[in-house]
Amino acid sequence: MSTETAELINYHFFLSIIQTGENMSVFILLNCKTYDEGTGPNAVKLAEACRTVAESSGVEIAIAPQIPDIFRTANAIDIPVYSQHIDGAGPGSKTGHIYVKSIKDAGAVGSLINHSERRLTLADIEAAAAVLKTNKMKSVICTNNVATTAAAAVFAPDYVAIEPPELIGSGIPVSKADPGVVTDSVEAVKKINPNVKVLCGAGISKGEDLKAAIELGAQGVLLASGIVKAKDPTDALYDLVSLI
Amino acid sequence: MSTETAELINYHFFLSIIQTGENMSVFILLNCKTYDEGTGPNAVKLAEACRTVAESSGVEIAIAPQIPDIFRTANAIDIPVYSQHIDGAGPGSKTGHIYVKSIKDAGAVGSLINHSERRLTLADIEAAAAVLKTNKMKSVICTNNVATTAAAAVFAPDYVAIEPPELIGSGIPVSKADPGVVTDSVEAVKKINPNVKVLCGAGISKGEDLKAAIELGAQGVLLASGIVKAKDPTDALYDLVSLI
Amino acid sequence: MSTETAELINYHFFLSIIQTGENMSVFILLNCKTYDEGTGPNAVKLAEACRTVAESSGVEIAIAPQIPDIFRTANAIDIPVYSQHIDGAGPGSKTGHIYVKSIKDAGAVGSLINHSERRLTLADIEAAAAVLKTNKMKSVICTNNVATTAAAAVFAPDYVAIEPPELIGSGIPVSKADPGVVTDSVEAVKKINPNVKVLCGAGISKGEDLKAAIELGAQGVLLASGIVKAKDPTDALYDLVSLI
Amino acid sequence: MSTETAELINYHFFLSIIQTGENMSVFILLNCKTYDEGTGPNAVKLAEACRTVAESSGVEIAIAPQIPDIFRTANAIDIPVYSQHIDGAGPGSKTGHIYVKSIKDAGAVGSLINHSERRLTLADIEAAAAVLKTNKMKSVICTNNVATTAAAAVFAPDYVAIEPPELIGSGIPVSKADPGVVTDSVEAVKKINPNVKVLCGAGISKGEDLKAAIELGAQGVLLASGIVKAKDPTDALYDLVSLI
Repeated sequence: MSTETAELINYHFFLSIIQTGENMSVFILLNCKTYDEGTGPNAVKLAEACRTVAESSGVEIAIAPQIPDIFRTANAIDIPVYSQHIDGAGPGSKTGHIYVKSIKDAGAVGSLINHSERRLTLADIEAAAAVLKTNKMKSVICTNNVATTAAAAVFAPDYVAIEPPELIGSGIPVSKADPGVVTDSVEAVKKINPNVKVLCGAGISKGEDLKAAIELGAQGVLLASGIVKAKDPTDALYDLVSLI
Repeated sequence: MSTETAELINYHFFLSIIQTGENMSVFILLNCKTYDEGTGPNAVKLAEACRTVAESSGVEIAIAPQIPDIFRTANAIDIPVYSQHIDGAGPGSKTGHIYVKSIKDAGAVGSLINHSERRLTLADIEAAAAVLKTNKMKSVICTNNVATTAAAAVFAPDYVAIEPPELIGSGIPVSKADPGVVTDSVEAVKKINPNVKVLCGAGISKGEDLKAAIELGAQGVLLASGIVKAKDPTDALYDLVSLI
Repeated sequence: MSTETAELINYHFFLSIIQTGENMSVFILLNCKTYDEGTGPNAVKLAEACRTVAESSGVEIAIAPQIPDIFRTANAIDIPVYSQHIDGAGPGSKTGHIYVKSIKDAGAVGSLINHSERRLTLADIEAAAAVLKTNKMKSVICTNNVATTAAAAVFAPDYVAIEPPELIGSGIPVSKADPGVVTDSVEAVKKINPNVKVLCGAGISKGEDLKAAIELGAQGVLLASGIVKAKDPTDALYDLVSLI
Repeated sequence: MSTETAELINYHFFLSIIQTGENMSVFILLNCKTYDEGTGPNAVKLAEACRTVAESSGVEIAIAPQIPDIFRTANAIDIPVYSQHIDGAGPGSKTGHIYVKSIKDAGAVGSLINHSERRLTLADIEAAAAVLKTNKMKSVICTNNVATTAAAAVFAPDYVAIEPPELIGSGIPVSKADPGVVTDSVEAVKKINPNVKVLCGAGISKGEDLKAAIELGAQGVLLASGIVKAKDPTDALYDLVSLI
């Protein structure tokens, strides 16, 4: 899809949103990955930055610290905490697996599933989405292109997060490098299940990136290094929400 | 190896241990797996049982709760807490990976590596053992037969834990079903690196199992369901240490 | 879904098929797995049995020998040969991967993707289906339940093959044990992409199983041990097609 | 280890080899990976180049084509053919796995195990080496550093092939970039099992690279793109063996 076409589609999406008054509450999910700047006590500090900016802006901001940091983060700061990974398996002989009840008990309200750095089989993605639903937790399935985004939507997660792998950590926002992948994903998901919301990931860090993502039809962003490794994450988050 | 030969070897090992006065401090590592009886607050209760029995018996008992439960367990109960899994990767773009600093910050003093329910590549096992050493943490590499036990010993972990997969969760102790795999592992490890200690896993739950493991040359046991799912885990642990 | 409801649905499917005169060419795909009875020269013998029965019955029968046996089988016997696995990756530094051009050059006309014994990530399933399409080859994506079947249909393969893992190799046909999973899969796929055909796997070996599968709306079956390990595979195949 | 030290060690190795008259038959293994230049009929052409140079130089040269190309290559050209991958699993329900009898029937005399592009778990490496031995086939376990090389030697394969991942496909020969990793590997393997030979991989393409590898104590090389993608692979192979 050409950039021009994509922009036109954006425009119409945007119009329709405004006109219908559809609830477009923006969602920001900050992934700490295994950056030292987001490990242990630093995860708590980042969560605090998220809460500060969420409160003053009214935008929903959640954090996905490393799994051993969920308990500490969720118990220290009152914002939604997500796990970076979850296994669909139930209780039993599953040493080292991430069991839904364990992350829920630790304070998580949801989980990423199938991040490109922790990919799962189709069967495991479905199982993970299912156990989150059973436990009334939020699910964010990460995908790498339009087709996998559409397939993930079949599992009726709360969100799919489209992140072209070649843009992750690139600093080049997907909304600029490949706006068509976002608009096409939004369209494809709508056909499969209109209740599933689309997040836009990969290369997002600034206010204009988030704005562009929203204009392309996404309901928010999944981002990491741009905030986690920023000199001042609070400032970086303020910039992120400044244009919406 | 025949059972008779194995028993003879045991006997000589045992004699040599007594005669040399070698430090045979026994080590028990309780793996919570993803059993509900060992999840969240239940992990803390199990850790408390471990501490009670460790204090009254003088035997070193450690616990490996699920990864999201490390922080809560380590901060509540003063016993050694291990992670059930660790990835060797350093800081960076590794969403969902278990990073050594995160588990250390959460309070873990060591980790299982390559449990049969969470197997790793050779390169990842080596990397995991190396990052634990760099961080002055304990390593327990799990293996499935004599050859893989010997190979794991090359990485100079603190412990190798031999667990024939067919006996895991069987209730049949490896010390009874296949004593040769234990004595052969002990011998093979001694040739590679005499500082590496051997744990005996799979089917262990009672005092006689631990005693047999020690007599076969192991320095302790890795066990799970027999204690975690016991009606009274404290009682079960008391029975476990009763014959040493 | 109750068995009664399922049977009712079958009946209506069946009726609609007859009434519309829709092309219901039945497709049988014989998976040799790594059975000795289907390895090397035995794969060629099985392919010969398939051809004999296909020719005399008019039913399309294809074979999926082990990957090293594709060349030998495809060059000896004139029936459609499928690979048991394919990787989506293109040419390059991918030692040990199964590259589409290599299996095509060897004589394969298609491939299984994501068999429950060789599961793939979502991204890899999509990539594998895409490279098969680009190379004008047939794709059969294996799935484990209704939700994953629907998701797989998004990739527009030629076939999805639903095989509840607990029934594989059980000897209990899915059409008897859980007819609802077949009819629900057929319905779900129809909504996603009506060009995708549904195969029914797991526990299929007899004529009545194939007949039941067709009545449930499937267009064929994926089967293995029931034929491969039969005393006389040709006879077993004749029985399989006897009721259609 | 400094380059100077490494060179000194080389020198003494070299001397000892010359002085003892130890059998230093050089072994070259050409990995076709999934390069188009080594796929299908091209694998046969490469095998022909290998045979030509092997016959005129007296150096043992083997080829590892893609798995679907084993049959065609082994039946066309009389040189040793290796598989790029093998699974340790026996016969049975293992769709898509590479079963030892299938590659042996197809004409392979051995296999790579655990190439960095197709890494295996510790248990699977051991199982693969064991089934090759049982079937009187050659095994080449690939490793990424000195420690994993030593561990692999425990399984008594015919060869370990040390390939620092950062040098694979770099064009920078490991013998130049990191000679210490080769000499240390040779020493470590000697301690574990002196019958295991060391191959040197990663970045090898020219005569001087092979010569350097031999001088560092290796008994040959594992190489790929430098020959497979050469304008004239026969010429490139002649250059490779020109200095030994």
